[in-house]
Amino acid sequence: MSSLGRIQRTAVGLFAVRGFAATGIREISRGANLNSATLYHYAGGKEELLATIMRACLTELVRAGTDAVEATGDPAVQLVRLVRAHVAVEAINPLTARVTDREVHSLTGANHVEIMRLRDQYEGLFRDVLGLGAAVGEFQLTDPRITRLALIEMCNGVANWYSPDGPLAVPDLAARFAELAGRMVGSRQVTADEYAPDIEVPRLESEPSHEEVPA
Amino acid sequence: MSSLGRIQRTAVGLFAVRGFAATGIREISRGANLNSATLYHYAGGKEELLATIMRACLTELVRAGTDAVEATGDPAVQLVRLVRAHVAVEAINPLTARVTDREVHSLTGANHVEIMRLRDQYEGLFRDVLGLGAAVGEFQLTDPRITRLALIEMCNGVANWYSPDGPLAVPDLAARFAELAGRMVGSRQVTADEYAPDIEVPRLESEPSHEEVPA
Repeated sequence: MSSLGRIQRTAVGLFAVRGFAATGIREISRGANLNSATLYHYAGGKEELLATIMRACLTELVRAGTDAVEATGDPAVQLVRLVRAHVAVEAINPLTARVTDREVHSLTGANHVEIMRLRDQYEGLFRDVLGLGAAVGEFQLTDPRITRLALIEMCNGVANWYSPDGPLAVPDLAARFAELAGRMVGSRQVTADEYAPDIEVPRLESEPSHEEVPA
Repeated sequence: MSSLGRIQRTAVGLFAVRGFAATGIREISRGANLNSATLYHYAGGKEELLATIMRACLTELVRAGTDAVEATGDPAVQLVRLVRAHVAVEAINPLTARVTDREVHSLTGANHVEIMRLRDQYEGLFRDVLGLGAAVGEFQLTDPRITRLALIEMCNGVANWYSPDGPLAVPDLAARFAELAGRMVGSRQVTADEYAPDIEVPRLESEPSHEEVPA
C-alpha cells in the first residue's frame, strides 16, 4: 500500500465529510500516520493534494468516457456506454467523485485552470454524443444544453446516495440510468448485445474504505 | 431588512463557499456587521443557525410540492407541477438549496432527526406521484426508487449551475425539466393548460444577493 494512496484516502475522507477548507494538513498527516514533512514530501501542500485527487478522478472519467464513445459510431449506443461508465465511476468511487464535484472552487491559479479544462473536456463527450444523436435524428432534444446538464447532474448524484452494500449492484444501477438517459433523449432502447462489454472502471487509489472515513 | 435575514444570508454565503465546518461564528458576525452576542441573540449558535436555514428551505419545498400535487389527481400533471416547483426553488435560491442539500451531516441530535424527517417527507411526494402514475398505468417505471432518486438529483443539480443572469428564465428552465421528467417516466406530455398556474415560489430570506457572497 503506497504512502501517497494512504494520504489521498485520508484526505478524501476528511474533505468529503468536513470539506476542504475545514481540513488541516495536520489532521491529514495524523490520519495517515505520517509526520507533516513526510506528507509534504509525498503529496505537496493541501491544494496540491486536492488537485492530484481531482485530476486522477477527472482523467479516469475522460478515459472511460472516451473509450465508451469511441467503440461505436451509433449515438444511442454511445450514450448508453457513456452513462454506464459515468455511473460506474461514481458508484465505485463515491467519496472521491463527490470531492471532485464540489471542491473546484477551492483550487487557485493553474490548478483551477487545469481542472476546469478537464471538466470541460468531459462535458464535451456528452455534448458531442447529444449533438451527433440530434444530427442523425436518433435523439429528439428540445434543449441540448439543459439535457446535457440534467444528465450529468443525475449521474453525479449517484455519489450522494449509492451504497455498495445496498440492494443494487453497479451494472444493474448502470442499466437503470442508461434506460432513463435513453428516455430523456428520446432514443430507442439499446440491447446488451449492442453496448457490451462495459468499460472497466477501477477503484481509484484515493477512494477510502469504510474504516478510512472519519465519523 | 431583518437582522436574522442578514445573518442567514451571510451564513449561507460562507457555508456555500467554504463549508459549514470551516466557517466560524465570528466570520458570520463580522460579515453581518453584528457582534457575537447580538448574533447569538437572534440566531442561536452556528448549528442552530444552519438548522433554521435548512428547515425553512425544506419547509418551502414541502409546501410548494404539496400544493403542486394537491391541485389535481392526474399523476402526469402532478409530476410536471412538482418538478416545476422544485426547479423554481433551486433556481431562485441556489445557495440556500445547495447548503441544505450538502450539510445534513453537519447536524446532530434532534436537529438531524428533524431535517432528515423533512427530507423524507419531501421525497415522499415524489414517491407518491410515481406510485400513483405506475398504478394507473400512466407511467412505465422499471425501478421506482432509482427513478425517484435520479429525478431529485437532477433537479437538485440546478442549484450547482443555474445562473439567473444566464439565457434561460426560471419558467423556461422549469419547462425543460418537466419535459425531461415526463420522458423519464414514460408519461404523456402535459400542456400548459393542464398544469398552469405554477405554484409561486419565494426568494427565501436566507438567499444572499451577489454582493453578500464572499469571493
